[in-house]
Amino acid sequence: MTTIQIGRSKTASVSYSFDDVALVPMKRVRDAEDVTLSWRIDAYEFDHPIVMAPMDSVASPATIIEYSRLGGLAILDLEGLWTRIEDPMAALASVATGPDSVRRLQELYSTPVDPDLMVQRVRELRDAGVTVAGALSPQQVLRFHDAVIAAGCDIFVIRGTTVSAEFVSETRESLNLKDFIYQLDTPVIVGGVASYKAAQHLMRAGAAGVLVGFGGGATHTTRSVLGVRVPMATAVSEVAAARRDYLEESGGRYVQVIADGAMGRSGDMAKAIACGADAVMVGSPLARAAEAPGRGRHWGREAVLADLPRGEVAELGTVGTLEEIVLGPSHTADGTMNLTGALRKAMATCGYTSPKEFQRCELIVDRA
Amino acid sequence: MTTIQIGRSKTASVSYSFDDVALVPMKRVRDAEDVTLSWRIDAYEFDHPIVMAPMDSVASPATIIEYSRLGGLAILDLEGLWTRIEDPMAALASVATGPDSVRRLQELYSTPVDPDLMVQRVRELRDAGVTVAGALSPQQVLRFHDAVIAAGCDIFVIRGTTVSAEFVSETRESLNLKDFIYQLDTPVIVGGVASYKAAQHLMRAGAAGVLVGFGGGATHTTRSVLGVRVPMATAVSEVAAARRDYLEESGGRYVQVIADGAMGRSGDMAKAIACGADAVMVGSPLARAAEAPGRGRHWGREAVLADLPRGEVAELGTVGTLEEIVLGPSHTADGTMNLTGALRKAMATCGYTSPKEFQRCELIVDRA
Amino acid sequence: MTTIQIGRSKTASVSYSFDDVALVPMKRVRDAEDVTLSWRIDAYEFDHPIVMAPMDSVASPATIIEYSRLGGLAILDLEGLWTRIEDPMAALASVATGPDSVRRLQELYSTPVDPDLMVQRVRELRDAGVTVAGALSPQQVLRFHDAVIAAGCDIFVIRGTTVSAEFVSETRESLNLKDFIYQLDTPVIVGGVASYKAAQHLMRAGAAGVLVGFGGGATHTTRSVLGVRVPMATAVSEVAAARRDYLEESGGRYVQVIADGAMGRSGDMAKAIACGADAVMVGSPLARAAEAPGRGRHWGREAVLADLPRGEVAELGTVGTLEEIVLGPSHTADGTMNLTGALRKAMATCGYTSPKEFQRCELIVDRA
Amino acid sequence: MTTIQIGRSKTASVSYSFDDVALVPMKRVRDAEDVTLSWRIDAYEFDHPIVMAPMDSVASPATIIEYSRLGGLAILDLEGLWTRIEDPMAALASVATGPDSVRRLQELYSTPVDPDLMVQRVRELRDAGVTVAGALSPQQVLRFHDAVIAAGCDIFVIRGTTVSAEFVSETRESLNLKDFIYQLDTPVIVGGVASYKAAQHLMRAGAAGVLVGFGGGATHTTRSVLGVRVPMATAVSEVAAARRDYLEESGGRYVQVIADGAMGRSGDMAKAIACGADAVMVGSPLARAAEAPGRGRHWGREAVLADLPRGEVAELGTVGTLEEIVLGPSHTADGTMNLTGALRKAMATCGYTSPKEFQRCELIVDRA
Repeated sequence: MTTIQIGRSKTASVSYSFDDVALVPMKRVRDAEDVTLSWRIDAYEFDHPIVMAPMDSVASPATIIEYSRLGGLAILDLEGLWTRIEDPMAALASVATGPDSVRRLQELYSTPVDPDLMVQRVRELRDAGVTVAGALSPQQVLRFHDAVIAAGCDIFVIRGTTVSAEFVSETRESLNLKDFIYQLDTPVIVGGVASYKAAQHLMRAGAAGVLVGFGGGATHTTRSVLGVRVPMATAVSEVAAARRDYLEESGGRYVQVIADGAMGRSGDMAKAIACGADAVMVGSPLARAAEAPGRGRHWGREAVLADLPRGEVAELGTVGTLEEIVLGPSHTADGTMNLTGALRKAMATCGYTSPKEFQRCELIVDRA
Repeated sequence: MTTIQIGRSKTASVSYSFDDVALVPMKRVRDAEDVTLSWRIDAYEFDHPIVMAPMDSVASPATIIEYSRLGGLAILDLEGLWTRIEDPMAALASVATGPDSVRRLQELYSTPVDPDLMVQRVRELRDAGVTVAGALSPQQVLRFHDAVIAAGCDIFVIRGTTVSAEFVSETRESLNLKDFIYQLDTPVIVGGVASYKAAQHLMRAGAAGVLVGFGGGATHTTRSVLGVRVPMATAVSEVAAARRDYLEESGGRYVQVIADGAMGRSGDMAKAIACGADAVMVGSPLARAAEAPGRGRHWGREAVLADLPRGEVAELGTVGTLEEIVLGPSHTADGTMNLTGALRKAMATCGYTSPKEFQRCELIVDRA
Repeated sequence: MTTIQIGRSKTASVSYSFDDVALVPMKRVRDAEDVTLSWRIDAYEFDHPIVMAPMDSVASPATIIEYSRLGGLAILDLEGLWTRIEDPMAALASVATGPDSVRRLQELYSTPVDPDLMVQRVRELRDAGVTVAGALSPQQVLRFHDAVIAAGCDIFVIRGTTVSAEFVSETRESLNLKDFIYQLDTPVIVGGVASYKAAQHLMRAGAAGVLVGFGGGATHTTRSVLGVRVPMATAVSEVAAARRDYLEESGGRYVQVIADGAMGRSGDMAKAIACGADAVMVGSPLARAAEAPGRGRHWGREAVLADLPRGEVAELGTVGTLEEIVLGPSHTADGTMNLTGALRKAMATCGYTSPKEFQRCELIVDRA
Repeated sequence: MTTIQIGRSKTASVSYSFDDVALVPMKRVRDAEDVTLSWRIDAYEFDHPIVMAPMDSVASPATIIEYSRLGGLAILDLEGLWTRIEDPMAALASVATGPDSVRRLQELYSTPVDPDLMVQRVRELRDAGVTVAGALSPQQVLRFHDAVIAAGCDIFVIRGTTVSAEFVSETRESLNLKDFIYQLDTPVIVGGVASYKAAQHLMRAGAAGVLVGFGGGATHTTRSVLGVRVPMATAVSEVAAARRDYLEESGGRYVQVIADGAMGRSGDMAKAIACGADAVMVGSPLARAAEAPGRGRHWGREAVLADLPRGEVAELGTVGTLEEIVLGPSHTADGTMNLTGALRKAMATCGYTSPKEFQRCELIVDRA
């Protein structure tokens, strides 16, 4: 990356967001029907690389089962309302936007997580025959992972604003990620990260997949509150470079790079893959489904933090069924429907027939 | 072009749109009356290089005949409503903006194209004595071109979001552009393209003119849906370079470079020529004519696609007659009227008296 | 200037507007009371370097006399309403904003210029004891200059969107600026120009002052209509370089560089001088005076052109008396009042006590 | 800093604001509870480095006492309403936004400063047991400093739009900062400055702390009025470099660098420290406190200047108690509450546990 001088005592790396870049067709156009979108992580294969994020506004047991039927991987937030409340439908329906929305979310999530309910939810999903994936925050992994393992997740996700392979605390017991993954029998996806080095550490710790970015682009305000921000095009490219180097270093272990955040439109997902991602984890596009538990409202877990909330409730509205959003047909022109059709068309237009090839797609950047 | 690093594993070419650049007068001012705008493609000569785009919202048989009287080339969309419906006036009048606009367009265009009607429309134009130009999408050329040739177009246009000289499909018969053009007796304009290489392939396939860009700037949403975008100043300059190199390579075949899209104001058209275009193809400026079939509403063919629409209906309103818009006088100050007068004035102000000379005009770019 | 590549066949010069730059205090702060703003052109000296632009919305005989009392140079548009209509107050009061504003301006200015009235206006000003300055467009200089000279202007201004030392026409008689200035006994200010070379030609033709920019920033739309635009910080710096080089070439003739346009706030005027201007010509800041003939509405001559108007009527409102605007005190915080006080304070803050010294002021540019 | 060419006769330094940069986590995540925010200037130590700015809208005797209880340094404006009016509560309540707001402020502040009241206010604070800090403008230091010293401030602040170590005037007696500081027994914080050199001069004059920036970002309009502006990321980095170099030159005198202005959100404060600041001085975030004397309205001293006001009244509203704003908990997600919690979290997320370490935090810059 280019380094520039911010005054005499400080430098900064020049970074690019998805909005800064665009795909440019430079090769022979392909037939969209020839594109295959299939994606595999560990032993699990999916029809497409669009992953439903573990957010209460999109992922309920019912939508996870439906999403699985539509060929994709969906993840349950194991610290969300479904593991706090027996029947959270009324609670979900009470979420609103407006000046008091954050305070109301904080109250809603003040009910503690119930490990028994956690086990019960995982079993519901297992009984439905789907690939079961559950997510915990790094802070809660030590506390709940026994329950989760007992329940039997197929894929385990550790997802926080920032995750490093080693968390340093002088007062609290902290997770040793490498030991944890080593002991676990299931593949672990972990993130978010924003840099080559942080990703490399997670890969060396044994992660099967690495989440790039801090998620929840539509709803989180980490930029205003912490000053932290990740221009995604650069971050994905950095982590893809870490994947490539780790592949050689490890003698062939290919770690899945999963972009997480700032992909509100199908065009953004195409850019994420073109920048080097193997898959994308999205919330807001799926929050617009008729079946979404948030009923068109969308929020992330960082919005419910008790002391320092860093997210808001976004009013997104509803555009169609989950099936129309994922598989089409589309009746809008804004990149919110037929996400897989859009990915196929983007790849074919640029001359590629698979996500892996598409990672070589030419990019342009505005001005700069 | 300058290449920059988007993280460690990816580069991007720095690209510029028309909004990024401006013309700067550096030479002796000329008299606008001394400027000649005439434009020629193959055996056909026109008073000015502004081409009416094959869009149902602007190009009907009636407006094509009027536009011809005003000295310009106008193109009929051979897959538009005029070849689907005997009398499409009611259908055209029913197009509206709003949340359901895309779905309604999709229904309107679900009536199949009628080859007989196609032939009939071409004959209407021929009988009126105009230079007849018709456009098909690359997908439909194989299916309809016999009908079109039988009907007798003077100029044939193949226009899609992206066109490459070779389209690759494993399942469908695909167009061999070179053979197709070779067999055809009429000059072929083909596009859009966005790069030097893609343009070069079309030139080598025998195109008489190449469309640069993906058209319909005012109405298409390819950026949101596919992540694909073409900053036009750079794209036109790239294709103009391909024209120059192909001129030498071919021993003198001069291919017309026609900018297509993102030119809503006369100033944008001037910039397109200054960047290297020989002509410009426009929709939205002509959709504001009192005679426009869209009655001030404007949409492109990508908006009517059944599975993945990538355009919307824009409400542009009406500013004057087609003659006032093309030849003046103007009564607005926003670059929407007297387009030829504005081109003359822009060239004269910068010290040039023809589009060909004007391609040498000095440019500035903001900041950068 | 830095040159960048706009695609393979075109380059552009990187240019900066006043908004892109800012003054940065790097020296010892001075006392604002020690700043002297006096400005001299030829034999005429003024208390400050802010020139009232020849625009009907600001410059009437009455406001010119008042402006002279306030220590500044004001210029009458010799092709404005005051030389077309005996008593233009009703006409001035009828100017309005809105959709038809351009058409109404065109009608208002369709009354031809009356050379006798021109002479009469100049005499009115002369009788009032002010330094008389009148402006003609380059197109009308040949036609009216005898009348103007007979009337006896002290300073003669030729002001158009672009003026070159030589205007080339195959059909019309054209002005030889050098001969014209040579024959004339009065100093001539001429412009606008946007480049080193164009300015150099005007200096060599004998101009006493050169206008940089195309004027009327608040109201003209040359960018949309013609694609022509002049980032002023760069343009002023370029012309200042031409002044420096011509000073040596001519053995000591110092030509006044007068920034004209895009200076709506006192901060912009300070930037213009810091970029190299000796004086600034402004319209919109003075259009906000209670005495302004436009009554808070503002328009330029390019808005009234019959075939291709390139300006609009701006509604600026009124903030205070002409004296408060020029000499203060100010009761607003937006840079629209006490323009000379703001210039003094800007210079003192940055450590300078005269416009000439202030041309050395340090600049910063955002990002870039 | 990078220097670019603004036309042939002028250069500019490329500068960055806080909005242009962001923090990027590149190290092991730390526990926010392990972060210590304590800050010391001279003999005075505080729990955190957020300083309450000397502005009437935030700092009254009552809020200064409360702010001291919350662990921070707060400064009284010794030329504000509290030293002009015996009981200024009614005056404070009458401040309003709107077209006449500046004129009304000017009237409010036309009552002269009363030195006896100044002494009385300082004593009130001293009696309450807080660290007493008072601010004067550079213009008034000579006139009032005897009164201030007699009253007994612990910390003395000289704060103006721009302050240089030496002020040059031909007519007025001017402050010799070095002599003044030498004679004074209390530590002096002085600013604002925007450059390495200006800061170096203040350090050499004996300043204990240097204010970087011109303060009042939310309310001042120095940019529009004077054309002067300070992109803060670059300015803080420059002054931090001066601190480092002066530390060596002086054989160990560490001068506090205090960012002042353009920090409306906790994320901005984190960026200021990451750019090299030791502390931050803020107004608008504290103006949103229920206890704020401005009742949610906010203005700076530059808004009340009699001849050339350069600030406005901003309507910010109220978000919570001063304690909630400084220490949390937060119920908003926009960076306006729990400022110290946000600083802790930002540092821990990026892998640091103190402000001094955090000055090494990695930065990214958008595009550029």
